[in-house]
Amino acid sequence: MPTSTVKTSEVDVLIIGAGPAGLMACNALAKAGINVRIVDKRPEKVAAGQADGIQPRTIEVLQVCRILIVIQVSIDDYGGQSYGLAERLLAEANQMHLAAFYNPNPVTGEIELSDRTPDVSESSARYPFEATLHQGMIEDIFIDSMRSMNVEVHRPIEPIAIKIQDTDNYSIGINAFPVRVVLKHLNALEGKTDMEVVHAKYVIGADGAHSWVRKAFNIDMEGEQTDYVWGVVDMVPDTDFPDIRNKSAIHSNHGSCMIIPREDDKVRLYIQLGSSDAIDATSGRVDKHRVGPEKLLDVAMKSMSPYTIRAPKGVDWWTIYRIGQRVASQFSVDERVFIAGDACHTHSPKAGQGMNASMNDTHNLAWKLVHVIRGWASHSLLKTVGFDLLLLGIYRVFIVQYELERRKYAQDLIDFDKKFAEMFSGKIKTSKDQKGVSAKEFTRSFIRFGGFTSGIGICYGESIIVNTRHQAQARNLIIGKRFPPQFIMRAADARPFDFQDLLPSDARFKVLVFTGDIYNSANQKERICQLAAQMGAEDGFLKRYSSGDIFTVFDILAITPRRDIVRHTDVPKLFHSHWSKVFADNQDLRGIQGGNAYSNFGIEASGAVVVVRPDGYVGTVAPFEHLGDIDAYFAHFMKVQVM
Amino acid sequence: MPTSTVKTSEVDVLIIGAGPAGLMACNALAKAGINVRIVDKRPEKVAAGQADGIQPRTIEVLQVCRILIVIQVSIDDYGGQSYGLAERLLAEANQMHLAAFYNPNPVTGEIELSDRTPDVSESSARYPFEATLHQGMIEDIFIDSMRSMNVEVHRPIEPIAIKIQDTDNYSIGINAFPVRVVLKHLNALEGKTDMEVVHAKYVIGADGAHSWVRKAFNIDMEGEQTDYVWGVVDMVPDTDFPDIRNKSAIHSNHGSCMIIPREDDKVRLYIQLGSSDAIDATSGRVDKHRVGPEKLLDVAMKSMSPYTIRAPKGVDWWTIYRIGQRVASQFSVDERVFIAGDACHTHSPKAGQGMNASMNDTHNLAWKLVHVIRGWASHSLLKTVGFDLLLLGIYRVFIVQYELERRKYAQDLIDFDKKFAEMFSGKIKTSKDQKGVSAKEFTRSFIRFGGFTSGIGICYGESIIVNTRHQAQARNLIIGKRFPPQFIMRAADARPFDFQDLLPSDARFKVLVFTGDIYNSANQKERICQLAAQMGAEDGFLKRYSSGDIFTVFDILAITPRRDIVRHTDVPKLFHSHWSKVFADNQDLRGIQGGNAYSNFGIEASGAVVVVRPDGYVGTVAPFEHLGDIDAYFAHFMKVQVM
Repeated sequence: MPTSTVKTSEVDVLIIGAGPAGLMACNALAKAGINVRIVDKRPEKVAAGQADGIQPRTIEVLQVCRILIVIQVSIDDYGGQSYGLAERLLAEANQMHLAAFYNPNPVTGEIELSDRTPDVSESSARYPFEATLHQGMIEDIFIDSMRSMNVEVHRPIEPIAIKIQDTDNYSIGINAFPVRVVLKHLNALEGKTDMEVVHAKYVIGADGAHSWVRKAFNIDMEGEQTDYVWGVVDMVPDTDFPDIRNKSAIHSNHGSCMIIPREDDKVRLYIQLGSSDAIDATSGRVDKHRVGPEKLLDVAMKSMSPYTIRAPKGVDWWTIYRIGQRVASQFSVDERVFIAGDACHTHSPKAGQGMNASMNDTHNLAWKLVHVIRGWASHSLLKTVGFDLLLLGIYRVFIVQYELERRKYAQDLIDFDKKFAEMFSGKIKTSKDQKGVSAKEFTRSFIRFGGFTSGIGICYGESIIVNTRHQAQARNLIIGKRFPPQFIMRAADARPFDFQDLLPSDARFKVLVFTGDIYNSANQKERICQLAAQMGAEDGFLKRYSSGDIFTVFDILAITPRRDIVRHTDVPKLFHSHWSKVFADNQDLRGIQGGNAYSNFGIEASGAVVVVRPDGYVGTVAPFEHLGDIDAYFAHFMKVQVM
Repeated sequence: MPTSTVKTSEVDVLIIGAGPAGLMACNALAKAGINVRIVDKRPEKVAAGQADGIQPRTIEVLQVCRILIVIQVSIDDYGGQSYGLAERLLAEANQMHLAAFYNPNPVTGEIELSDRTPDVSESSARYPFEATLHQGMIEDIFIDSMRSMNVEVHRPIEPIAIKIQDTDNYSIGINAFPVRVVLKHLNALEGKTDMEVVHAKYVIGADGAHSWVRKAFNIDMEGEQTDYVWGVVDMVPDTDFPDIRNKSAIHSNHGSCMIIPREDDKVRLYIQLGSSDAIDATSGRVDKHRVGPEKLLDVAMKSMSPYTIRAPKGVDWWTIYRIGQRVASQFSVDERVFIAGDACHTHSPKAGQGMNASMNDTHNLAWKLVHVIRGWASHSLLKTVGFDLLLLGIYRVFIVQYELERRKYAQDLIDFDKKFAEMFSGKIKTSKDQKGVSAKEFTRSFIRFGGFTSGIGICYGESIIVNTRHQAQARNLIIGKRFPPQFIMRAADARPFDFQDLLPSDARFKVLVFTGDIYNSANQKERICQLAAQMGAEDGFLKRYSSGDIFTVFDILAITPRRDIVRHTDVPKLFHSHWSKVFADNQDLRGIQGGNAYSNFGIEASGAVVVVRPDGYVGTVAPFEHLGDIDAYFAHFMKVQVM
């Protein structure tokens, strides 16, 4: 076939793999108006099984991924309203609020409840539970959102070859397409060419644990296997087990078992197996033929005695896996090809981190690609995406010491996951058998790991986009951590909001002006006017780093302290560009909640300027008189725009 | 044309008019599986203007009108989740939390803020605000919900003739179609017949203030006109008025004006006019040609000085109206034809009651039609729908003294509305001019009317479906009033719920078993078992009034008192037919809310059985030992079913 018949095309970002990591990236890029394409080699999206747990922080992230629903009122009149993706997730998902721990009764040997604890112990979680839902339904939330922007997953399409054509990519312009990918259409009609060449500015390999992209660049997975083998069964149970709708960790004299309630009446069971049950001694690999779902349920029945559990409607899905903890040796190639999700980290599923880590990978990456592709930021912004796994789903951004710190934290991750998996798979200490962890120790560990497992403990380290110099100006608003939930009242209409909803994932930096006590202090009133003048000046960061409309790149909100009668017109015009931009630290009108944002954040009556990154993480803070430090913050990676 | 070519059809319920009242009825009937048809003579739904205010109680009602969204997971696997209609309303609507009152400064004569007060003063409102949204978008919420059940509005179709063929309709069976309606298709093709005959079991005339159905049965509108004339303008304003996003009542030396903020940046202005400005002296009618939108804005500008308001993008919609308060002399004909909404009541729009009263009319009517058409209830249930307006949007159900009490309360309504309109249209007392109401008096009245205007004060009077005999068993759960919002925790999974969400508008009676102190009292444990045995007996109401599956007609929920470890298996099997049916009066896991349902409701440790009607109003209450009174309650209108 002559090469001239091979279709070629250009795209800003090509995403390979349409699982949660790829879809999260695609949705975010499409929403920001980036020319993006996503391909997957599977003919259909995942139908059953796979991941199903959404952690509290991931729910927060999905809530700020807002989609616009356009409603046609009449021929000429369009209304629209944005919904958070979490709204649909919460309407469809099950919620896990409680964790229950069962252990053998010392006398009868049968399991009994030893403890119950909130499933989410992290007190600042906006959603104090885990949401569980079939992975296919989570993918649907993204697919439907993308469809509203006319972006579809192209499938079945397989990558065949990939090459970064100009490795000295820092010297090439933002309009170059240095990554060449050859794609094969698996359902091409007989006689039609099935090959296609795509030239991309950037490629994201979100193609799973067996990532083709990772292998194409010879990136190693480092880590090790354990001897722990577990089975998984999804079903609608018939059972008298009273904690069937809570996350239940069962240690019995016949092995361990974990229950994850799901949407509708479904339940997932994780069932511990003896390694001899499921591993082929010759190959050392898990052999699914050696254990079927009936055998798995038999083992579960033994663990759960005196309770019974059956699957009268059959088993929806099942699998067997061997626990291993492995991390890719690098996450990007020349800052042109990135791998994300299972492609760069695999670990045991029971801590419920896999899909969450994957979506947070690309939530972290997408806005940076947007800024560089749009020409707002220089390429240096991408060097910081050497993100890394630190204790399940915790990332750090590195500037120079990427390799060094990545290895350290990858080791931390493996250590944590090892300990966690060991606790689950090992025996519980009893009066007869003093080996293993005690029931109390197990519960305590569960709670202690809560900051990590909820995803809320993530704190990005110091970098060009995380500057902690003036942390003292907002003592409790930790720079590098996600902006926490907080009740706040809109000045113009006394409507209550959660602060996180004011910080949508729309690729813009949010500049929060905590005005300080402008009501009682003439000096503060003067200071806020000076701040507005300086910030709105021609050489201020707002105008330097945006061309024309500053609100394309930045959003500006003002937050006044508590006062009975507040008005959006109480602040300088720059800070009330629209009536909806001013908020007061007031209680709600019934006096039930709110009124303590300044104290919760540790901001004094002298006020502060807080910069929140597009992904919702606090970027930097400065007092009014050090606005120059915010100019400097942006100067590190933003490009001066010509009007 | 030979009559044989005229199309004829049969339908359980024909609804004439697809405004809020008709759509609410149609959606509820369709959801209950009733064969329903809705026609409207307008070729398109309303595009601008009209009503726009949704009261707190109506939001509660919309929230319990749940629609099922079916999600296809894979070819063979369907998931589904119900959403409350209020969820979409709240995503699209503006919220009014504050009311602001402006009056002339005694010295300058220019208006100034005299007071602010919460817009909703009723403390038990679940949603402490009014939602404002263009009527067309509210209609869309119903139309989309109906579409998901394959029900569409048929238009443009006009009724030509209506006749109840058998006036002695009590003697005819439930399968008769005694109402004959001739419909004309206004867009019939040339040469095709445009006439159609529909035979219906019931007809709802929801065809507006000039109701054709009402006139067809010669039902009078009783009441009177005032001399108050107001203009209305919808627009996106350019203004420096600081309370532009609050409900603002402005009394100036140049007339009165009211501001209602709307979705997006839109605002509605109500502007007082001199009667000479707009009324044709000869005809005594409002003449729209005498006043245009420019004139209305001129008047508003004068009232609002020193603030300015302009409509740089033009006026979306405008009208002029003369305030009148009128009520239909009867609301039903032979319990076969009902009129609802504006067809039976018109009053001044500024108290924001019109659309709310309309939707609540048919929310009250629909479930009764369902029960009679399904054959669950006898025709006597419909006799009680002689609903009536009592102080704007408040209904009473009459058995015998319908005419007598209807007149009394209609008078109350007119008196209230007169006073309210007078206050708005009249002058405010100043130091110079002692006539009129004082600013303080105006604010006080606004707050005092809050129970009525929020729609939450509605209390249906004693009737066959409202039995207050054992009110003392649940002292604060007022029989005849809507079941109030209340935090409650689901026993099986510790998930928090608002109690109202457990009482969806699904045509079923809800039987709430407050178990009393089964944890600490052996006697109470015994009593709850006896109650379950008696309630589940062959001659108990559950089985007598349902054929086969009791859950078609009833839902049963159990509520245990507060206790650290609760399980859904703590109550007899009848009360935990599914794991999701048992709730505990516990605080949420963070200890912030809940844990006081028993005391809030005034229920003691001895427990109580509470019956909630399908529309969410408390029907009756009984102690365990008087379960016979609940049997008797249902015996009044339910039909014994043959299994």
